[in-house]
Amino acid sequence: MDFTLTNEQELIKESLREWCERNIPMERIREMETAGHPLPDDIPKGLGELGVLMGTVPEEDGGSGLDWFTQALVAEEIGYADISAATVAACMAVMTGWGYTINKYASDKVKKEAVVPALKGQKFIGIAATEPGGGSDVSSHKSTAKKDGDHWILNGEKTFISGVEEARKWGGGYWVNVNTNNAPDGPPHKNMSAFYVPVDAEGFEPDEPYRDAGRLALSTSGFRMENVRVPEENLFGEVGRGFYYTMEGFDNARILIAAGNVGTVQRILDDGMEYIKEREAFGRPIAKFEGIQFELVELYRELEELRLLVYKTAWMQDQRYQNNKFKPTEVAKWISMCKWKGAELAVKAADRAMHWLGAAGYSDEYPFEMAWRGNMSYSVGAEGAKNIQKLVVGRELLGKEYIPYK
Amino acid sequence: MDFTLTNEQELIKESLREWCERNIPMERIREMETAGHPLPDDIPKGLGELGVLMGTVPEEDGGSGLDWFTQALVAEEIGYADISAATVAACMAVMTGWGYTINKYASDKVKKEAVVPALKGQKFIGIAATEPGGGSDVSSHKSTAKKDGDHWILNGEKTFISGVEEARKWGGGYWVNVNTNNAPDGPPHKNMSAFYVPVDAEGFEPDEPYRDAGRLALSTSGFRMENVRVPEENLFGEVGRGFYYTMEGFDNARILIAAGNVGTVQRILDDGMEYIKEREAFGRPIAKFEGIQFELVELYRELEELRLLVYKTAWMQDQRYQNNKFKPTEVAKWISMCKWKGAELAVKAADRAMHWLGAAGYSDEYPFEMAWRGNMSYSVGAEGAKNIQKLVVGRELLGKEYIPYK
Amino acid sequence: MDFTLTNEQELIKESLREWCERNIPMERIREMETAGHPLPDDIPKGLGELGVLMGTVPEEDGGSGLDWFTQALVAEEIGYADISAATVAACMAVMTGWGYTINKYASDKVKKEAVVPALKGQKFIGIAATEPGGGSDVSSHKSTAKKDGDHWILNGEKTFISGVEEARKWGGGYWVNVNTNNAPDGPPHKNMSAFYVPVDAEGFEPDEPYRDAGRLALSTSGFRMENVRVPEENLFGEVGRGFYYTMEGFDNARILIAAGNVGTVQRILDDGMEYIKEREAFGRPIAKFEGIQFELVELYRELEELRLLVYKTAWMQDQRYQNNKFKPTEVAKWISMCKWKGAELAVKAADRAMHWLGAAGYSDEYPFEMAWRGNMSYSVGAEGAKNIQKLVVGRELLGKEYIPYK
Amino acid sequence: MDFTLTNEQELIKESLREWCERNIPMERIREMETAGHPLPDDIPKGLGELGVLMGTVPEEDGGSGLDWFTQALVAEEIGYADISAATVAACMAVMTGWGYTINKYASDKVKKEAVVPALKGQKFIGIAATEPGGGSDVSSHKSTAKKDGDHWILNGEKTFISGVEEARKWGGGYWVNVNTNNAPDGPPHKNMSAFYVPVDAEGFEPDEPYRDAGRLALSTSGFRMENVRVPEENLFGEVGRGFYYTMEGFDNARILIAAGNVGTVQRILDDGMEYIKEREAFGRPIAKFEGIQFELVELYRELEELRLLVYKTAWMQDQRYQNNKFKPTEVAKWISMCKWKGAELAVKAADRAMHWLGAAGYSDEYPFEMAWRGNMSYSVGAEGAKNIQKLVVGRELLGKEYIPYK
Repeated sequence: MDFTLTNEQELIKESLREWCERNIPMERIREMETAGHPLPDDIPKGLGELGVLMGTVPEEDGGSGLDWFTQALVAEEIGYADISAATVAACMAVMTGWGYTINKYASDKVKKEAVVPALKGQKFIGIAATEPGGGSDVSSHKSTAKKDGDHWILNGEKTFISGVEEARKWGGGYWVNVNTNNAPDGPPHKNMSAFYVPVDAEGFEPDEPYRDAGRLALSTSGFRMENVRVPEENLFGEVGRGFYYTMEGFDNARILIAAGNVGTVQRILDDGMEYIKEREAFGRPIAKFEGIQFELVELYRELEELRLLVYKTAWMQDQRYQNNKFKPTEVAKWISMCKWKGAELAVKAADRAMHWLGAAGYSDEYPFEMAWRGNMSYSVGAEGAKNIQKLVVGRELLGKEYIPYK
Repeated sequence: MDFTLTNEQELIKESLREWCERNIPMERIREMETAGHPLPDDIPKGLGELGVLMGTVPEEDGGSGLDWFTQALVAEEIGYADISAATVAACMAVMTGWGYTINKYASDKVKKEAVVPALKGQKFIGIAATEPGGGSDVSSHKSTAKKDGDHWILNGEKTFISGVEEARKWGGGYWVNVNTNNAPDGPPHKNMSAFYVPVDAEGFEPDEPYRDAGRLALSTSGFRMENVRVPEENLFGEVGRGFYYTMEGFDNARILIAAGNVGTVQRILDDGMEYIKEREAFGRPIAKFEGIQFELVELYRELEELRLLVYKTAWMQDQRYQNNKFKPTEVAKWISMCKWKGAELAVKAADRAMHWLGAAGYSDEYPFEMAWRGNMSYSVGAEGAKNIQKLVVGRELLGKEYIPYK
Repeated sequence: MDFTLTNEQELIKESLREWCERNIPMERIREMETAGHPLPDDIPKGLGELGVLMGTVPEEDGGSGLDWFTQALVAEEIGYADISAATVAACMAVMTGWGYTINKYASDKVKKEAVVPALKGQKFIGIAATEPGGGSDVSSHKSTAKKDGDHWILNGEKTFISGVEEARKWGGGYWVNVNTNNAPDGPPHKNMSAFYVPVDAEGFEPDEPYRDAGRLALSTSGFRMENVRVPEENLFGEVGRGFYYTMEGFDNARILIAAGNVGTVQRILDDGMEYIKEREAFGRPIAKFEGIQFELVELYRELEELRLLVYKTAWMQDQRYQNNKFKPTEVAKWISMCKWKGAELAVKAADRAMHWLGAAGYSDEYPFEMAWRGNMSYSVGAEGAKNIQKLVVGRELLGKEYIPYK
Repeated sequence: MDFTLTNEQELIKESLREWCERNIPMERIREMETAGHPLPDDIPKGLGELGVLMGTVPEEDGGSGLDWFTQALVAEEIGYADISAATVAACMAVMTGWGYTINKYASDKVKKEAVVPALKGQKFIGIAATEPGGGSDVSSHKSTAKKDGDHWILNGEKTFISGVEEARKWGGGYWVNVNTNNAPDGPPHKNMSAFYVPVDAEGFEPDEPYRDAGRLALSTSGFRMENVRVPEENLFGEVGRGFYYTMEGFDNARILIAAGNVGTVQRILDDGMEYIKEREAFGRPIAKFEGIQFELVELYRELEELRLLVYKTAWMQDQRYQNNKFKPTEVAKWISMCKWKGAELAVKAADRAMHWLGAAGYSDEYPFEMAWRGNMSYSVGAEGAKNIQKLVVGRELLGKEYIPYK
């Protein structure tokens, strides 16, 4: 085994760190969080110019052809800068994770219309899976698509969708899951198909954005589709395969979220450590109190564990795509472990750091409360709730016959 | 032992519950949280009319002469209604806890000027202990008071003070700790004295309120005192005794916060339980999944434990004040256990409930995220940080010679 | 509410404390643990003479007619003395909990034969519910009883039964659950009946005792029944009601275990505190390190919570039996919370104390490792495993339709 | 980065797995645990013949010259077989970790006398650091060595020393720390020197072995040295450098313990998973209950995290020894994280598995209780208590000026 980064990887990390310090210093993250969505579009454009937004899109499709391991390093640096989770969410989890997957299954028309500008950060690309009935049970959606000549007519409602405001401002569209009723006697997930739906399509009606507890620089909204007409080329891959593509897309997004969490936890500990070394109580730096020092130490160990987990998983994902070496479900198991632990640890680290600072940590004088609120979005649900990740791991460990709800 | 409430206590609980349902239903709590401070003044006025705001102030001073046990039941009901913690914070912890203590040590002049209107909810009464150098080490403050004839001149700076906007809008003032240098060779806490300082005093300069993570319906600000002149009658008790009075005030406030937490946790579980019984995933109510049900069950047991801890402690406090039965430091030990566990459990219960709901729980569609953000204020610091509570308990269990920082 | 013990209760506690110090000092507990079962019979005899073994048996049946609250105080004192859990297990959980229940449903013949001598500690009384197929699903047992004139013929196998060696040495017998096939079309639990089976009955074949991880002074064994013949009078109550009686018996045993845990945790903290005050490392008593002091403080708070939970529950049980005030299932919910938390906390407290002592804590130089091993028996299974307690609480909170496995 | 084992490493793992299955199957581990110490000497001899006992000793000194990464894989396999921790303790932690360190600092005489036979498993080599005054504060020992011509005279007492019975039966000796008073004005750790002391030296007086809670196949005892005379060649390295050598030795032992924990946790989960898939309750395999399945899933994630942490750390240790790439204190930080997490996780996994099995898990019918008892030895103290590991990590993260007790 070898735990060394290549020179090229070190260089990418360094240049990202510099770009972030210049373009999204902590003061700006706080301003964005205070101002609220939409996310300023110079961020995706800047990352697009660097070639790291949707960096895993192959070179032949206009991308940088980065491997997932390197893309995870990119996400880590961005998570180090934007601990509110908005930039990781928008640029890495959603645009990169789903952009890659869209590119893989899209027609040339959609690649040209949606993927190529998104690569440059000029358009938004997102995922619309959750419906009012729930998000965890992915194939329980009620939206439909009906064939009409060489077009499809889509109807239904989606909720808790990231980036709708951004997509409407920058242009762009969504990966939308629908029921195509192609296998009427089959289980729901065999009737699931996925389409690219631009937000400026007629019949696409966005709701007011939700007011969330955090990650405020990025919008979350629902939208309705009323007889939205899209051409056949907007179908991803084959009819009835949407469930499997969606699972792949979630995997691609989740690993980048977890990588972002690694950076966020690192930043919290770096900044928190500075604070506890300087702040004094009862005549000594508070870092000398074991009640605080041991919390730091435990978080630090968990950070290194998470980092290794994410690195190994990103490496497995590369092995899967490049060398066909691991089964997708095996990689999914590892990704689910990263996703669940990453969000949990980011929330926990921010919680502990807030406590070290006391009342100051609870205010916007320091960034920790912003990290606490923002990263919770990934623990409660965005890109897959905690218990869903556990079910994925359990299914792989024990076998499908031990799924609790069957 | 007897675990029954008296009929009178049941009646007070019931009438409070009704008052809250009518005056501060959950929709209004959300509105207040969204609008931000100051807290609407009909709330303290309403509670004042009911006789439960500062209800422990003796009848001879115009109060209701409630015992602490009954006052804790009041706080519990208010915590059940306002799970954002703002009302409990303002009306119970700050006004009742400190109002009682002020009344105990104040001159007739201050009683008349400050306590009597506050009893009716017509003025605000608060505590100003924390300074830029920190809050946990209570006697480390730098503010000073110098005798000048029959007046005192106060100078210094206070931070993270609850209710400054409210006090300026409603009228009112603060319990302010200062160094009176009365025992120059003694330790800092022997030089600590406490004064009543009205917010409209000349030289009282409030800062902009902080933007906090939660509890947004109540303001938190700093203020500076530049040669603030107050008459001798504004001194509480004796010069040099401020530290002991302050500890008593904290105890009186903390027990009511913890009682509020009991109500908040009860509400989170009541509402959360309804949700998980109705919401379905994978074809069954999510309450049937042990991953969720066992979390509910554990929270419920912790709630009952907390409730009993708070009830016994409030009973001890009554025994202390009425029958001189427990030493103040013994009661302080129990209060610290309540304060630390109460805030911790309220945050935890809200966190779990958010997870049950997923993305919806993270938005303002449901109240859980508001409880999560708001109650954290009590865990990180307001009225005493978690680790300080542990130090209090440790000191009582082990003896002063085992205080870690000595 | 009132949190005071009566003078009589204080006296009973005191006399028990003295009896324990004289008869089962820690050195003897260690000797008993090292020697292994059976439990020396002077212990039940001594408790029997004091009138506190099976103290809740009514006076008209030869018992002391203690209430459950007082009996819980007795169990607490014994748990304080015997932190290995063997004496609480044998004398309180098994003999008192089940002895009371047996007495309630037994014929005069069995009362005379089994209960009266057991009251004096001259015979053992136990419970045999678990079978090789499992213990958590109480009504899944395979043992049978068939009517044969005015006798019943019992067949089947029981495992992990406490006290078989003791019963064979002292005399005595078991509460045995069997299938009487009285409602062939009904669910298993409607076909469950309970009998008193003396260990010297023909066809009663005990296995070799298990070698357990702890609680070694009390035996655990299986036994087989091969055509064991018992008279009609050995049936408890009515045919087909065994399930309900058994649930009642478990409740009666579980509350006393939890009360024992309270005493055990108190003893661990009392002795552990002495140790950390005296032991030095790096030039100071280790009690001054927050890494240790905060653990003590947290355990202490949990102890007080557990104690209050147990006291309130015992009080509810008295209200149920004396005043018909709470529904049995409501009391069962509280008892399950006590049982699960009690065992968990006892194991945790012993674990922490062992860590404070380091290698010495892991050896028989100190009693903590014995408490750690012994109390685990109640967490893993004896008198009901942890998850079963959670299911009981969940069922009462949510309703039967939310039982996870239905 | 690359997460692949080499073919040679895979082969070593495989051959070890086979050797363990043949020589120390679970039945024999149970027998050894039941019989108690000393550890049968065919085990070290077998491992010695395979070249993996003290495998990191360089080839020029008769060893196999394995790197630490490969040696960690060996420890992992042995931990998979002997989950009671006795074999890992004796053969990996003590003999390999300390054997390597002894070989590094020993004279040719001691290499020949002690290391060469130990390499083959024909003699025991151990560490004697702890004294009655405590073990965590390594330099607080009171044993002394005084120069007497070309010999040294050692006096003092050591406690909680692993393997004394084994050393006396097989032959062998100890790394013994003493005060040489070489820098009378310096701090204690500058006066610390280390010697090789054979157990058959005159004046070496072993005590009776302790009766521990677990890891029973390996003895733990104290011993006294009364004027033990050893020649100058028995001094390790230089006078006054013993503290630094000892820290190095602890690092070398700790990484192998943690590697053993990895294997143990893997075995517990492998066997536990089989059990919960087969065992039924309430009509379904208990693996389907989320209360159990989620515990498995969490443990599994923690296992993979621990494995990666250990692998990276062993790789760092190789980089340190081979390429001088990491500072010893940096490697020590990582080793301390492994040591503390490894023991904690092994105890936790065994605890959970016991609960899955209920009463059966608490008995010697299954191996889990043996793992629970045995691995606790590493959490409480052997080769460094948990809090000491945290202090090491804290010191490296924060700097020496933040050590809590200074």
